[in-house]
Amino acid sequence: MNEQAREHETDDVNEIPADESIDESAIEEQAAEELDPLAELQKERDELYARLQRVSADYQNFMRRSETNLVDSIHLASGDVLKRFVPVMDHFDTALGVEANSDDAKALHDGFRIVRDELMKVLQQAGVERLDPQVGEPFDPHCHEAMLQQPAEGVEPGCIAQVFQPGYVYKNRTLRAAKVAVVPE
Amino acid sequence: MNEQAREHETDDVNEIPADESIDESAIEEQAAEELDPLAELQKERDELYARLQRVSADYQNFMRRSETNLVDSIHLASGDVLKRFVPVMDHFDTALGVEANSDDAKALHDGFRIVRDELMKVLQQAGVERLDPQVGEPFDPHCHEAMLQQPAEGVEPGCIAQVFQPGYVYKNRTLRAAKVAVVPE
Repeated sequence: MNEQAREHETDDVNEIPADESIDESAIEEQAAEELDPLAELQKERDELYARLQRVSADYQNFMRRSETNLVDSIHLASGDVLKRFVPVMDHFDTALGVEANSDDAKALHDGFRIVRDELMKVLQQAGVERLDPQVGEPFDPHCHEAMLQQPAEGVEPGCIAQVFQPGYVYKNRTLRAAKVAVVPE
Repeated sequence: MNEQAREHETDDVNEIPADESIDESAIEEQAAEELDPLAELQKERDELYARLQRVSADYQNFMRRSETNLVDSIHLASGDVLKRFVPVMDHFDTALGVEANSDDAKALHDGFRIVRDELMKVLQQAGVERLDPQVGEPFDPHCHEAMLQQPAEGVEPGCIAQVFQPGYVYKNRTLRAAKVAVVPE
């Protein structure tokens, strides 16, 4: 993309292509043109037309390519995100395999918690933030969802009375609002 | 430039041959241009130049926008993928909360398996396919990773002797190759 932009810039800057080679016939031609405004204009017009054709073709190609690029980039980015969850899946399967016949509730519970923590770590490393609103915080409709209204001792009206579920945010976008109860106004 | 063109026109009016159509001024203009190739060429050149300026500006704007769009689209797509894992996280937390003091290994194991199956479902719904190569299948370096070589009864050389871990594929891209043992050649 940047390469093309540079190309394009160069195109714009050199209105008249610089030619360093000293060619006598070219000089003569140039001199003749200077003397013949009609020929000079024709040349100018033809050059402008050729440049317009070129820029239009570049533009069309760029539009076509950017559509394909977009789809490819989205698939690549989604694949990168999904790839992070593969080890979690592996650990699930390993833990379930090892503990398949275990009757040790404590070991099972610990295994369960380890995989859970790993999933949370993967989400956080991918850029997801967990929202843990506190009782008494003002209710914010952007990241809190009011499940019900209920009074709570020492909590102002319009503030959080109870938290049912945490919220999750990614790049300023609320993936899931935190589920709360709110003190009625 | 236009002034000059008009000047020319006025100059040339008298030379315009008689014409039968009704709009005299239009005819005059047309005739003047026909008679003054220099003015015509100048107009053509100016129009081409204006179009070139417009197309170039559009092109530059499109390039700038498409860069921003790409980043936005990638964040949106990644967020969509990540959002799918939020319910898995919730179920983990619910299960761990409920079973916190459980000493029922069977119930814990079942809870563990339910969350594991949900994670697999989320991956599959996001477009991830699980690769479960079978013993005896030819080894494919695109989606299998050879951890070691070992013979296996009834399996041809270069074919899979044992499967250690499944693979995962997304949109023809191997997220993780299946880990296998291969019969030596």
